[in-house]
Amino acid sequence: MTKISKNSKKSLKVDSVEKSSRRDFFKKTAIYSASALTAATVLAPIKLKADDENIVNHVDWGTKLGDKVDKYPYGVPSAYEHNNVRRVHDLLSSGDRYATVSMSPLHQQEGIITPNGLFFTRNHGGTAQIDPNKFRLMIHGLVKKPIVLTLEQLKRYPSESRIHFIECPANGSTGWRGPQFNNLQFVKGMMSSAEWTGVKLSVLLEDLGLKPEAQWALVEGSDNSEMGRTLPIEKILDDAMLVWGQNGEPLRPEQGYPVRLLVPGWEGNLNVKWVKRIEFSDKPWHAKEETSKYTMLQPSGKAINFFWPMEVNSIITSPCPEVPWTDLKKGDMVEISGIAWSGRGTIKTVDISLDGGKNWVEAELKGLVLPKSWTRFSYIIKWDGKKKVLLSRAIDDTGHIQPSIDKLIENVGVEGIYHRNPIVGWEVTSKGVVNNVHVRS
Amino acid sequence: MTKISKNSKKSLKVDSVEKSSRRDFFKKTAIYSASALTAATVLAPIKLKADDENIVNHVDWGTKLGDKVDKYPYGVPSAYEHNNVRRVHDLLSSGDRYATVSMSPLHQQEGIITPNGLFFTRNHGGTAQIDPNKFRLMIHGLVKKPIVLTLEQLKRYPSESRIHFIECPANGSTGWRGPQFNNLQFVKGMMSSAEWTGVKLSVLLEDLGLKPEAQWALVEGSDNSEMGRTLPIEKILDDAMLVWGQNGEPLRPEQGYPVRLLVPGWEGNLNVKWVKRIEFSDKPWHAKEETSKYTMLQPSGKAINFFWPMEVNSIITSPCPEVPWTDLKKGDMVEISGIAWSGRGTIKTVDISLDGGKNWVEAELKGLVLPKSWTRFSYIIKWDGKKKVLLSRAIDDTGHIQPSIDKLIENVGVEGIYHRNPIVGWEVTSKGVVNNVHVRS
Repeated sequence: MTKISKNSKKSLKVDSVEKSSRRDFFKKTAIYSASALTAATVLAPIKLKADDENIVNHVDWGTKLGDKVDKYPYGVPSAYEHNNVRRVHDLLSSGDRYATVSMSPLHQQEGIITPNGLFFTRNHGGTAQIDPNKFRLMIHGLVKKPIVLTLEQLKRYPSESRIHFIECPANGSTGWRGPQFNNLQFVKGMMSSAEWTGVKLSVLLEDLGLKPEAQWALVEGSDNSEMGRTLPIEKILDDAMLVWGQNGEPLRPEQGYPVRLLVPGWEGNLNVKWVKRIEFSDKPWHAKEETSKYTMLQPSGKAINFFWPMEVNSIITSPCPEVPWTDLKKGDMVEISGIAWSGRGTIKTVDISLDGGKNWVEAELKGLVLPKSWTRFSYIIKWDGKKKVLLSRAIDDTGHIQPSIDKLIENVGVEGIYHRNPIVGWEVTSKGVVNNVHVRS
Repeated sequence: MTKISKNSKKSLKVDSVEKSSRRDFFKKTAIYSASALTAATVLAPIKLKADDENIVNHVDWGTKLGDKVDKYPYGVPSAYEHNNVRRVHDLLSSGDRYATVSMSPLHQQEGIITPNGLFFTRNHGGTAQIDPNKFRLMIHGLVKKPIVLTLEQLKRYPSESRIHFIECPANGSTGWRGPQFNNLQFVKGMMSSAEWTGVKLSVLLEDLGLKPEAQWALVEGSDNSEMGRTLPIEKILDDAMLVWGQNGEPLRPEQGYPVRLLVPGWEGNLNVKWVKRIEFSDKPWHAKEETSKYTMLQPSGKAINFFWPMEVNSIITSPCPEVPWTDLKKGDMVEISGIAWSGRGTIKTVDISLDGGKNWVEAELKGLVLPKSWTRFSYIIKWDGKKKVLLSRAIDDTGHIQPSIDKLIENVGVEGIYHRNPIVGWEVTSKGVVNNVHVRS
């Protein structure tokens, strides 16, 4: 695999949001020069036809009053978007609808925020419905001042808001078995992103006083499965938070209302929901969900017990099977775009291949580039109407690089189903139909 | 008014999000030294009592299965949050529920994203319900290639996602008449914030070819009021966008589904919803809503016709009448926090006064500090149990500073109801009750 082209575009950091423009992008992109843009149009303009005039002039727009402003005190999506929902698949469930996962429709998401109604959900005993007035959080064990907090008391601590993704470690778990689903939603939909608000555990513990021998924390949920996970004190004191806010409103029930743990960048199941208890100890607990599950089976037959950060990863979201190029024709310009993320740090580079990994070009990073957060990438081509095999490969600022399927198998075997982050992609046929393909060397 | 204290904290830029911590904040804050924090606790810890043990041990948590994961394919808030909704007030309506405004519950919002269901709504003829299959956008006038676009065609243009607030210019319009409402929602709730996705008009126009004599654009909606506004070409080419995405999903109907104009930082009504037509011309239109309304009446009796950018502004959101300090007692530490914003640029500084404007201290800017976006500020005090008059004053990077009520009246008179951005605030009584007060010099 050889890099044939690398343009000089830097990622759009916040400071330069106002300075950079898509116009610059067009001018600087390797494939498209300014003259090419002038010659080619993104879309051929449509001449006004009788049919269009008919629509513009004769739809009922503006002929009657719209809905009252207070029809929905809490608003709902357009009725025309009834298909933009989370979906459950029997092949990904545990045989019921309580200990299973609903997948987020990533193909309609843009930017780095998932609306709360579409945030993927992984439960182990159903969505608990907790009365916030009865909520109590007990913090005990190796702390100087053990405490039981009400929700109001917890929310009195100084808060922070941060944008982070949460991803189930089983996301993309078919990454070495060959394509299983032919849509983006089931291929990568076990993740979502939100702006979370809460208190850093380091702030709480500065108040409560952590004893020096405390090395581990057990965080326990109040759901039916009593989901509990062990976390090392380094992560707790680094950036772990107890969050009560999600995209500007109270946490949703499926996300642990009224309070969940947030461990930025680490396995989804560690972000314990409906938290009721945190205990500090000098050794780990080896709780149910970190022995029977969420361990990393090795070729040797032994499993790694604790395996926390989500690996550097990426996926092209446009095109995808749900967003094909069937309306495009030869010569049309089209944006290839997607999401990159890493639980270890900040996305540094995303490369794109149009030919199944033979050649790679560097994509533009679009918008905000934040640590342990979705980062959007983009690359614009003029489609020649021929079949393409589109792949993306992300690199983060810790030096981790997304591996090929074969490289990953070479490194960790085929036994484990978690933390599979190989390069996967889409085949676009000459008709513009998009299919899930796995590229093997 | 003299500044008595200014700490050296810099705003939390994105690059340093991981580096800064609340621990540092405690150490550096002028009012709170590290030793003060060690001595005082944010909250007095609660000893476990029989009652608490009763709650922890005997609530029904974990005793029954929760809801199925697919109960809500599109999720809804917790039933316990039924009061967290947009609200309409007769005093702010036009006598009906079609040409009026619903106010966002800012007191429960944290961070810089408003969930789509709570985004404030200002309609002029009701919420239009547009079939996306019938959507057509006509772009004509002084362009080389006039065009009629379908929604699919528009969405083929390279997109961007940006976080911006939208604010009605009448927000806080009672800022010189004395307190009218005793809650944050009606005092400042005519604004919200979202991550918007769409195409920059400069990109579209690079494709369509703007004629050199084009100086103005008319952007027209397909709602019952046929809301249309004139915009100068400089803004159109700077950062105006046609957006179809809002916080990761298609635009909500109340926000102009399927396509609205976004003119970052400028008057809410300029962000035309349900867009059907953009026409370019060499002169402005003087449309209905820029002559009968949305003009700035001067003391002379004449009105300024075009008056676009929203001024630098700020409001304390905690405490506020809906979030009082009635549960606090003397000696408790408490965070004073709020939102600052400017339609002209980026927030540079926010000052806080605890004594009605006699003395000011510099607040910390929390989280992302983005141009033409909400910016969160914070200041922590130990409450002495005495009455406070809390004010906030924002300064942006263009040098604009939020004026006092009297200064604003001196500058622009009392005739106009738009763009009133004076310093307003809250009185906290010794019992912790919070009331809206206007401080006059």
